[in-house]
Amino acid sequence: MTRTPGYLLAALRAEPPLVQCITNYVAMNIAANVLLAAGASPAMVSDADEAEEFARIAGALTVNIGTLSEPFVEGMRAAIAGAEAAGRPWVLDPVACQATAYRRRISAELLALHPTIIRGNASEILALAGEVSRGRGVDGRDSVAVAEDGARLLARKHSSVVAVTGAVDFVTDGTRAVRLEGGSPLMPMNTAMGCSLTCLCGAYAAVTGDPFDAAVGALAHFAVAGSLAHEGSTGPGSFAPRFLDALHAATPERLDAEASIHTIEEVRA
Amino acid sequence: MTRTPGYLLAALRAEPPLVQCITNYVAMNIAANVLLAAGASPAMVSDADEAEEFARIAGALTVNIGTLSEPFVEGMRAAIAGAEAAGRPWVLDPVACQATAYRRRISAELLALHPTIIRGNASEILALAGEVSRGRGVDGRDSVAVAEDGARLLARKHSSVVAVTGAVDFVTDGTRAVRLEGGSPLMPMNTAMGCSLTCLCGAYAAVTGDPFDAAVGALAHFAVAGSLAHEGSTGPGSFAPRFLDALHAATPERLDAEASIHTIEEVRA
Amino acid sequence: MTRTPGYLLAALRAEPPLVQCITNYVAMNIAANVLLAAGASPAMVSDADEAEEFARIAGALTVNIGTLSEPFVEGMRAAIAGAEAAGRPWVLDPVACQATAYRRRISAELLALHPTIIRGNASEILALAGEVSRGRGVDGRDSVAVAEDGARLLARKHSSVVAVTGAVDFVTDGTRAVRLEGGSPLMPMNTAMGCSLTCLCGAYAAVTGDPFDAAVGALAHFAVAGSLAHEGSTGPGSFAPRFLDALHAATPERLDAEASIHTIEEVRA
Repeated sequence: MTRTPGYLLAALRAEPPLVQCITNYVAMNIAANVLLAAGASPAMVSDADEAEEFARIAGALTVNIGTLSEPFVEGMRAAIAGAEAAGRPWVLDPVACQATAYRRRISAELLALHPTIIRGNASEILALAGEVSRGRGVDGRDSVAVAEDGARLLARKHSSVVAVTGAVDFVTDGTRAVRLEGGSPLMPMNTAMGCSLTCLCGAYAAVTGDPFDAAVGALAHFAVAGSLAHEGSTGPGSFAPRFLDALHAATPERLDAEASIHTIEEVRA
Repeated sequence: MTRTPGYLLAALRAEPPLVQCITNYVAMNIAANVLLAAGASPAMVSDADEAEEFARIAGALTVNIGTLSEPFVEGMRAAIAGAEAAGRPWVLDPVACQATAYRRRISAELLALHPTIIRGNASEILALAGEVSRGRGVDGRDSVAVAEDGARLLARKHSSVVAVTGAVDFVTDGTRAVRLEGGSPLMPMNTAMGCSLTCLCGAYAAVTGDPFDAAVGALAHFAVAGSLAHEGSTGPGSFAPRFLDALHAATPERLDAEASIHTIEEVRA
Repeated sequence: MTRTPGYLLAALRAEPPLVQCITNYVAMNIAANVLLAAGASPAMVSDADEAEEFARIAGALTVNIGTLSEPFVEGMRAAIAGAEAAGRPWVLDPVACQATAYRRRISAELLALHPTIIRGNASEILALAGEVSRGRGVDGRDSVAVAEDGARLLARKHSSVVAVTGAVDFVTDGTRAVRLEGGSPLMPMNTAMGCSLTCLCGAYAAVTGDPFDAAVGALAHFAVAGSLAHEGSTGPGSFAPRFLDALHAATPERLDAEASIHTIEEVRA
């Protein structure tokens, strides 16, 4: 990596980026709280009447198909056009993209617009890469490891950074690749954690020109905070407020000291 | 009962059912977290473009009219058709069905589709049964006891299981009937608890062919977890994370040991 | 003030007002929980098919443009017409009204309907008053003090009470004016706190004919609960449940004893 997670977190806190999040109804509140706790400034602006205009003033855009409907899709198209026109990064979260024909169609359309970062679980990344998945709905049943090759293919084909998250995370831009450890088994028992992480990827992408570093930074922040919040939690309910506290308490120094990032492939000069 | 709440909870955790929840914007996040903490797998899929297709792969469907609008209604119709076609149970939550003409019309339309389970507060059940209620909006003013006869009528007319929830709950299928005690006075001070319970009824209905047992199981799980969470709570805010922890911590054995279920009427062979 | 915050809180708890909240998707859950914890009865009813009818039975209406779209706007118009026809107060929350052309247009239209109370941050109030603001999105960058003159102008022009909230709050009806202190620096790190306060202004407005007293009462309740919740909080996540507990625990006596309200201008007889 060119820039460590801690370096990026310091930049984010020095000048909090405005992140336009088009996310699903389940995630809106917790995703906004995750961004605020981390130090960024969320704006849930999704309507086609203003999404393009807003994308031009935001530092990054995130797009999530969790509770899909035509008004959302129209807002996504407008916002992506605005982000592209303004040279801003945008992140795709293909929630349950394999579950219905409608999701397959819309996720394919959005993928063809070449997102800067794609963040999903293994089932979703496999589906986007055109491979068979065992996932049904929003809960991926596949392990991250089986999606690593699909992630590489997807990254190369669309010039995107692909982040596959689960018990162990994997990030690749098609040449570089890392695995990240950490987090907590209580995280999948809290809804919309992945959706919130997608929004945090947007926040990190707003403060660096390297989306690979951005994705690694956001995932490291989540993993370190998740591990910290796990201590003392007595279930998924008590984990949630502790996790927001931990996102807020994480310092750049602590992030770099505690993140568990393993380089798999490096760019050779 | 043929199957105890603990028996059903063990089945639910052995193979987590996918529950399609068409619920209101207020409830979406907490209902998803309730299902995850209990051990089920929620999917908030409501758009008419995919609701029918998704209902065919889900184990159960729940339909809630809390934040009613035409796109939601179109999604409900499609999803119910899908659930019926696939032989899946579906649960109706007639939130504030007596409050406006629009709600009266839509709740009557949905009722005529014969939901497998109907869960509401006393005011809502009285209104559906065609009786006079003192309820105004979403907060029922009537006590469960006054709605018991209405619940029996409703159950017989629509071949549904009817669950009336409040300080003491009542469940009937028109012949069998039980009352359940437990829970916490802090529960009505947390929004969307009833809506979340409706979704949990769907999860239990997905793991048994007997919707009466399913409703009793879900209500018992809620009541036991509510009582457990009440201990140590200092208000409605601290109750909420404790409740999710308690839903998760409840074991099948504990559920059967602590549930307070009183049989009122039994089917005679 | 004619009536103290404690006097109004006692009235609110003696007969909980039904408050119709048309608020954004991010705020719906927490706003409902804030009203329930405070002692009021929330109803998130926004669709044009029922919003007018419902406004006639509710004690007050609140209108928030946070996640703006045409269906919301149609519901707002209908609900405001119903509230006006029934002589009920209504509160406007012009979230990020300066951010896009769409927001500027809709907030101007709603402002022209003369809201009973307007609650916003300094950037929003400055924008409504036609003055230059440094705010970008939903997070106001301006301090409350710079918006005091704009608030007075706005209040006189529209015969509204204007509440500007931030580290120190300011409330004016164009002749009377107060500043309020209290709260917690963790409040801006929790999303939709301002939106929830707007809904609480509606609850207080439902129990008194004096909207100035109502706004001061709601802001005092928030400030006292915020200060109380701050103690022992270890970050924004742990603050949230403590805040709901504190809203609930606040008694009328405690509210009047602990509220820090400084009269700036008084009506001279």
